[in-house]
Amino acid sequence: MNLIVLLTDFGWKDGYAGILRGVIWNIAPQVTVSDLTHDIPPQNIFQGALALGRAAPYFPAGTIFLGVVDPGVGTGRRPIAARFGSQYYVGPDNGLFTLLLEEAERHGQGIEMVHLTRPQYWLPKISNIFHGRDIFAPAAAHLALGIALAQMGETITDPVRLHLPAPVRSPEGWQGEVIHIDAFGNLATNLRSEHLQGRGQIEVRIAEITIRGMVRSFGEGAPGQYVALIDSSGALSICQVNGSAERSLEIGLGALAQVVFIT
Amino acid sequence: MNLIVLLTDFGWKDGYAGILRGVIWNIAPQVTVSDLTHDIPPQNIFQGALALGRAAPYFPAGTIFLGVVDPGVGTGRRPIAARFGSQYYVGPDNGLFTLLLEEAERHGQGIEMVHLTRPQYWLPKISNIFHGRDIFAPAAAHLALGIALAQMGETITDPVRLHLPAPVRSPEGWQGEVIHIDAFGNLATNLRSEHLQGRGQIEVRIAEITIRGMVRSFGEGAPGQYVALIDSSGALSICQVNGSAERSLEIGLGALAQVVFIT
Amino acid sequence: MNLIVLLTDFGWKDGYAGILRGVIWNIAPQVTVSDLTHDIPPQNIFQGALALGRAAPYFPAGTIFLGVVDPGVGTGRRPIAARFGSQYYVGPDNGLFTLLLEEAERHGQGIEMVHLTRPQYWLPKISNIFHGRDIFAPAAAHLALGIALAQMGETITDPVRLHLPAPVRSPEGWQGEVIHIDAFGNLATNLRSEHLQGRGQIEVRIAEITIRGMVRSFGEGAPGQYVALIDSSGALSICQVNGSAERSLEIGLGALAQVVFIT
Repeated sequence: MNLIVLLTDFGWKDGYAGILRGVIWNIAPQVTVSDLTHDIPPQNIFQGALALGRAAPYFPAGTIFLGVVDPGVGTGRRPIAARFGSQYYVGPDNGLFTLLLEEAERHGQGIEMVHLTRPQYWLPKISNIFHGRDIFAPAAAHLALGIALAQMGETITDPVRLHLPAPVRSPEGWQGEVIHIDAFGNLATNLRSEHLQGRGQIEVRIAEITIRGMVRSFGEGAPGQYVALIDSSGALSICQVNGSAERSLEIGLGALAQVVFIT
Repeated sequence: MNLIVLLTDFGWKDGYAGILRGVIWNIAPQVTVSDLTHDIPPQNIFQGALALGRAAPYFPAGTIFLGVVDPGVGTGRRPIAARFGSQYYVGPDNGLFTLLLEEAERHGQGIEMVHLTRPQYWLPKISNIFHGRDIFAPAAAHLALGIALAQMGETITDPVRLHLPAPVRSPEGWQGEVIHIDAFGNLATNLRSEHLQGRGQIEVRIAEITIRGMVRSFGEGAPGQYVALIDSSGALSICQVNGSAERSLEIGLGALAQVVFIT
Repeated sequence: MNLIVLLTDFGWKDGYAGILRGVIWNIAPQVTVSDLTHDIPPQNIFQGALALGRAAPYFPAGTIFLGVVDPGVGTGRRPIAARFGSQYYVGPDNGLFTLLLEEAERHGQGIEMVHLTRPQYWLPKISNIFHGRDIFAPAAAHLALGIALAQMGETITDPVRLHLPAPVRSPEGWQGEVIHIDAFGNLATNLRSEHLQGRGQIEVRIAEITIRGMVRSFGEGAPGQYVALIDSSGALSICQVNGSAERSLEIGLGALAQVVFIT
């Protein structure tokens, strides 16, 4: 356990994520600290959960994810640490880790969760504003040093869970929605390859446009063309080849995406 | 001394900060290099000083801060390296490190400062444009290798000091100003918890609004509400719960913030 | 070979670059991974090539550059790995590494290039969308582990080469163009110090303005003044002292820049 990966909504400009590193290295000088992203939209637990869900499976066993999207800081929400399968998570108990927890449950992997209650693993002085610095970073650092979860707090079994918008079966196919838009402007929906499996050709309707059929890569479309494809995380996505579907279609998170089975 | 932390106004997009890393690793391959931020507004020494002042105390003894906000590059301004207490600083002599210097002075910690004058610790070829790459990064790397400050240049005792805007005592309380706005849009003033200590209830006036009393955490306010609180660095801040006070109040750096003692 | 440096057009917000790190550390846990930039404009191979060309010479021998600006992902374009002199490159065969290749050729350094064709050095499952994750990151990690280039694929000698816009000799001097604009708004042209050597005074004409003579550093101009100088990468640049020439002149990539020899 020599790797701590940071995900926050702090942005990059103020150095807040740098402060987390300082705190970690003060306690565990040997640990490698890496950024996943600090651009989760402020207080947007759902987008944070998605980003962690996409990335965590690619990291080594033993990786510790320190996730801080924490609108409830300073209130009664619990600080927690957890092990799902072979990876570790430290952050607020607000659903940020739901996708990884449920993935571990689906695969019958070992799950441990504790309410962080032992101040000897925190900074000496705790603000009501920045538990990332004062509680979560030091807890993650102690975890990296080999302190057991059970030593850092009381076991819990009732973590807050995030409810993801599920696609709805329609007479003609599925109705889903855009749940993630990446820096390229690709529109990822909550429809996944599983929803389309065993079906013939489909049509995707979004905004004012209809896309007939799917491509397997961007190169199958002409520049500027809208295409539907299964993206690298397994989601049905609407993309514009060498362009931004987000900007061209003027579409945001939550926009409806309809799939129609046409054969 | 195995950790170099970078703070610059280079932005992230051009790879200039990456070049600093390359230069460092060429000289000191074992050193860990970490970003604090590269989003200091161009040439804004004051914002750079604030970011360093907030973050440095959380880093381990022996950390080397490489700070490059350097509008005077290529002119007579001196390149310097310094030790304040247990930490090291390398960069232009323009006030970027004033807050840390004064903190060390207040605590009676050891202080060493040198004018970097020995080219054997720089790159062989020095541009007039990019001393971050040609002088400061190599100097920081040599420091990490264990070269003494005194070997790298001549002692100085007259560094350029930055003058921070001080809050002014008013008949009713204090008049301060907004000195930092973070990515969340929280407005940090130059008033600190010390200015309010021992006082009863206060009122904060900023832009068109008046906030009565203070909260200890965001969760004590309703979403959208403006609150005043002592932020994680000890500054009186005006925030909008789950929102951006900066955008909602249409306020920028330098805006006046008034504190009135009402009991 | 213990250092992998990332350059992509992924942006920072989605954690895609973090995923590359996870993949690398799964295969080569000891390797240091560093960001050069992830802000290359989407699909802009030329800007990616320039950023690599500026930075690579400052990195140590043995550095592995993992470059992913890859509009042709999932098509016939080849995945490649290469050694130019003492450094390594992994990414799509689309010209992204041309500048470094030509630099090595000019200096008569050793050159090896292979078409990556051995799936045992990739992730088990390959998407058509994200070869950065599925092919390039694992290949770079294996390279870091000491696998020879020749083991990872077939030698090629016909890499795709990028053609850079060359400046044109005019009766009065040179006609060049703006090829890079950095975060400060400095306008770098394709004219280099070599084009001006041995000449007396020059005039630079760009947009509506004429700049007579050159400065050696920003400090030689007054704040707000437009100056021409040789920047830190050797390019003739038009800059505004303590300002943004890009914003003030409302100029973009490709804008013409004329040099007139006046003495």
